[in-house]
Amino acid sequence: MSSTRDIDALIELMAKLPGLGPRSARRAVLHLIRKRALLLTPLSDLMQTVAATARECLNCGNVGTADICDICTSEKRANGELCVVEDVADLWAMERSGVFKGRYHVLGGTLSALDAIGPQELRIPRLVDRIDTEGVTEVILALNATIDGQTTAHYIADQLEDRVRLTSLAQGVPIGGELDYLDDGTITAAMQARKSL
Amino acid sequence: MSSTRDIDALIELMAKLPGLGPRSARRAVLHLIRKRALLLTPLSDLMQTVAATARECLNCGNVGTADICDICTSEKRANGELCVVEDVADLWAMERSGVFKGRYHVLGGTLSALDAIGPQELRIPRLVDRIDTEGVTEVILALNATIDGQTTAHYIADQLEDRVRLTSLAQGVPIGGELDYLDDGTITAAMQARKSL
Repeated sequence: MSSTRDIDALIELMAKLPGLGPRSARRAVLHLIRKRALLLTPLSDLMQTVAATARECLNCGNVGTADICDICTSEKRANGELCVVEDVADLWAMERSGVFKGRYHVLGGTLSALDAIGPQELRIPRLVDRIDTEGVTEVILALNATIDGQTTAHYIADQLEDRVRLTSLAQGVPIGGELDYLDDGTITAAMQARKSL
Repeated sequence: MSSTRDIDALIELMAKLPGLGPRSARRAVLHLIRKRALLLTPLSDLMQTVAATARECLNCGNVGTADICDICTSEKRANGELCVVEDVADLWAMERSGVFKGRYHVLGGTLSALDAIGPQELRIPRLVDRIDTEGVTEVILALNATIDGQTTAHYIADQLEDRVRLTSLAQGVPIGGELDYLDDGTITAAMQARKSL
């Protein structure tokens, strides 16, 4: 490398981002240097702001800039529905769809005996508390359709049984999905849950 | 999006980096927020430093932190060989291989009638100057093996003819390459330039 120390260090740090490797980090850094005023300086400033202000909502685990996030403070969203997701990225994905009008609870992962992640690590006690304090009538388990996700869903279902209505996302063929490209499990689930027209 | 304005703005800026789209930018920003002390703050600081110090070498076009880069100032590298590359990324790739001990000249692109990029835009006049002032004896055209790259190589060869020894990188089978996966042009070039064992 003929570039100097700071540029090398920047490439090394950028390569630690998910989705970027050493090669794409080099490309990104060259791009940043070329677009200094448009990209590099604003990006640096924004990162500083976010580093100073971003925090997890103490209630639901969402990422925002206040101790309690916008969704938790909005009275409009207190409709008794609580959607349980694994991760903030899943919450954002639900919000983009715009279909859900209630509140969220971000677990921050899934139960895992191997990684020693138990209910305490996953904000599950807090979830149980919220059922009463927020007058929740329905808990929608929107966990990933993986083994860990489904194990966690079963555990939560056990904890909340009889206290609240429990639902989970429907499983089936994704919109625009081609049967030939779907796995057997999805086709089986879609067939078993078939609807009359 | 339930995240607040700064976080959204950061995601939007990150998505402008080459190799990142909206989805990977969201993942990267969540990762950054989680690794605030390890990644987000150092990254922001480094970007600020680089934004303040990075500049193009006035002589060769390399990116560094001085008006004239380390390679151009190093007397060790004044061995009469000058390697012409399209882009700083190509210079870095050559430096990683460690095979070349001379100096570089970064064109900053290729000639293109469509995009109105002529010799003046490409530091070609500066290249011609350097032949005399730096006592260059050999110019190695290490341009990409694309049509634009080869057009540019021909133009430079025309300009420098009779003034200096001109060479270009060998074309052939890449190390570890499998014939079945190579295009016809590469196989033809490798066959025509075959060597006796």
